[in-house]
Amino acid sequence: MVYYDAAETLSRVEIERLQLERLRASLKQAAKSPFYAKHFAACDFDPASVATLADVRRIPFTTKQHLRDSYPDAMLAMPLSEMVRMHASSGTTGTPTVIYHTQNDLDWWASLMARCMYMAGLRRTDVFQNMSGYGLFTGGLGIHYGAERLGCLTIPAGAGNSHRQIKLLTDFKVTGIHIIPSYALYLSAVFAELGIDPKSLSLRIALVGAEPYTEETRRRLEEIYGIKAYNSYGLSEMNGPGVAFECQEQHGMHVWEDAYLAEIVDPATGEPVPDGELGELVMTTLGREGMPVVRYRTRDMTRFLTEPCPCGRVHRRIDRLHGRCDDMLIVKGVNIFPMQIERVLMAMPEVGQDYLIVLERDGYIDNIRVKVEIRDEYFVEDMRQLGALQKRIAARLRDELLVTPKVELVERNSLPKTEGKATRVLDMRGNGA
Amino acid sequence: MVYYDAAETLSRVEIERLQLERLRASLKQAAKSPFYAKHFAACDFDPASVATLADVRRIPFTTKQHLRDSYPDAMLAMPLSEMVRMHASSGTTGTPTVIYHTQNDLDWWASLMARCMYMAGLRRTDVFQNMSGYGLFTGGLGIHYGAERLGCLTIPAGAGNSHRQIKLLTDFKVTGIHIIPSYALYLSAVFAELGIDPKSLSLRIALVGAEPYTEETRRRLEEIYGIKAYNSYGLSEMNGPGVAFECQEQHGMHVWEDAYLAEIVDPATGEPVPDGELGELVMTTLGREGMPVVRYRTRDMTRFLTEPCPCGRVHRRIDRLHGRCDDMLIVKGVNIFPMQIERVLMAMPEVGQDYLIVLERDGYIDNIRVKVEIRDEYFVEDMRQLGALQKRIAARLRDELLVTPKVELVERNSLPKTEGKATRVLDMRGNGA
Repeated sequence: MVYYDAAETLSRVEIERLQLERLRASLKQAAKSPFYAKHFAACDFDPASVATLADVRRIPFTTKQHLRDSYPDAMLAMPLSEMVRMHASSGTTGTPTVIYHTQNDLDWWASLMARCMYMAGLRRTDVFQNMSGYGLFTGGLGIHYGAERLGCLTIPAGAGNSHRQIKLLTDFKVTGIHIIPSYALYLSAVFAELGIDPKSLSLRIALVGAEPYTEETRRRLEEIYGIKAYNSYGLSEMNGPGVAFECQEQHGMHVWEDAYLAEIVDPATGEPVPDGELGELVMTTLGREGMPVVRYRTRDMTRFLTEPCPCGRVHRRIDRLHGRCDDMLIVKGVNIFPMQIERVLMAMPEVGQDYLIVLERDGYIDNIRVKVEIRDEYFVEDMRQLGALQKRIAARLRDELLVTPKVELVERNSLPKTEGKATRVLDMRGNGA
Repeated sequence: MVYYDAAETLSRVEIERLQLERLRASLKQAAKSPFYAKHFAACDFDPASVATLADVRRIPFTTKQHLRDSYPDAMLAMPLSEMVRMHASSGTTGTPTVIYHTQNDLDWWASLMARCMYMAGLRRTDVFQNMSGYGLFTGGLGIHYGAERLGCLTIPAGAGNSHRQIKLLTDFKVTGIHIIPSYALYLSAVFAELGIDPKSLSLRIALVGAEPYTEETRRRLEEIYGIKAYNSYGLSEMNGPGVAFECQEQHGMHVWEDAYLAEIVDPATGEPVPDGELGELVMTTLGREGMPVVRYRTRDMTRFLTEPCPCGRVHRRIDRLHGRCDDMLIVKGVNIFPMQIERVLMAMPEVGQDYLIVLERDGYIDNIRVKVEIRDEYFVEDMRQLGALQKRIAARLRDELLVTPKVELVERNSLPKTEGKATRVLDMRGNGA
């Protein structure tokens, strides 16, 4: 086994010793910021009181709202003049959240990202096309700096412009890409229109992230492109991409525990859930100097995988994301994650690349309607056959969801397409929902 | 005087000694590429025969077409696996041109860019908002790496989304920006709509480049924003931004002669023009290892400024660009550069921020029509006053151009707006032009 960084070979004991040491330093650093000085005091928490990793449960949480309240810079633990980069959320749903980085922070982030890419099998000899939007969004520059650090020939393609993406992929014999899953599916349709088989490219490896997607979609992408697709997890509050990544086992994402402290808690109570159970991921930066963030409630639902990983790395793995706490739909009193619906649909060969979940209210009753794109070869004239397919999809969804959705079959390309993150849920129930 | 880099304080003799040494090394390096090996041989040119800087005239030119013919990588002087970045033109007018960089090349480029920014008065304590599009276009990442290298807090805002740009400028007390001139004018209109005076911001310095613009437009921007605006010159073939930049004298742009060899030639004959005369800028990379480009015909028209610069730097200055050889319009047998028209218009207080040059054919006769946006306060009901203004503009344009254009006055916001580079010339004369 080859590793990029000696940190990957640490034992459990070494990781935990390092984590405790870095957690204590991080808390001390955080306390220098106006926000944490006040927050820790208000919660009667003394950073110096943390003596073991078990003490982490006594540290107060940080929420998205705290980040918003700290706008623009109350979480800075060092002078603004020491910062060299800023990333911000779009703020479309309120005040933006802003994360600052010093040069050391950027170096650390780039090396974590390079470590992820190396683990997925990329090397300095690879040609890597980054299809993320650049700018304030962390996916672009985050992946870019990692790819350059690793020494790949990095093509900063940015988002959109599918014909150009395909020209670059072809002409420069690109071997690795970073792409969001819905765009990868969309792009496969453009390849089909151009009459190019994506398997004829030099592509070996795709890094896939930025939106939740299912194992079934991954297998589809791997088949369409003739590649290995590796899941990536990151969030701007923890820098961006490079937080957790799949190794070549493709079974769960290793969290870099020398850089982040990960916990999984019950989203309702904030108490830790037993290892292996589903809960909300809570993350702490270990080593970010400019703007440490402590016990951040990510709202992302996942679980720790408990078995040792055959790759030899002991950094703990999290399961693929099950969506966000906030994504959970409640229909007829039943909790539903959109990912459950995607999992069912993508396992059926008749189903195309796209679907849309519509929540409706019929009088006092909530209904769930799923519009499902059907592959051309199954979109036959015979209404009886289509009717049978519709019933089969509805039955499988009912088995998974425990409520019966209305299923509507639609032709290819009839659902609204997007080059960015796909819209998968349309809630038509109005404000009362 | 404070300098960022010791290279800024070199004497003329030292610069020329360094240039000769680096030119010889560059030619040797270039000759390792398939393109130059062939090109030099075809032109009967022996790179080792260059003994003095005067010998540069014997070196064959490189044109845009050569770059296109070398697509995708025939100009590489080192193995592809040593490259870590690629930039490409959009290729909308044919095969894209592609430039590759090694890690050393990127470091060198970032330090040249940081040197430019420092010369314009930016320091590591500045907050810098980069309003260039990122990705394959060099303006985004080029400026970004320079700003980070200098240690500014760098906000990778990217292009467009004016309301967000203004929110960032305001909330983060931005002191420096990179912006293209037509967008700076457009943004001033958005400020006006929002009822915010741009002079109320913390802004001190704008780096302005990527499209030709006049001194009159610069003074307008300086007045509107209450800033100093510094001209920037670069082109992707010579890395991108960071090739030549104004010092605080704001009079001509210093070419970094330790990094680039600049010549000015007659675009028709390729022979050097006397110092101070207008001609086509020809550039050679001195020190780029991955992909040296030798005697590149930029198509950009400028002249050397011959007086010593009071700033103390002896790196030669080029005048603001007079447009591109290809931009020159021929109307009724007279050569016209669009910049001449802008210069006249922007010097008149009645004229707003926008204009459009339309070339028309009336039978066998070419006409030039200039649509001119008039400021609200001058756009009066009285037709006689408007008629007089129209005549005054036409007369001034005739004095400058030696042909009489038709002048059409239009209201604010009635010309098509763009957030990217402005379209200033519309040629309606058909293919026969």
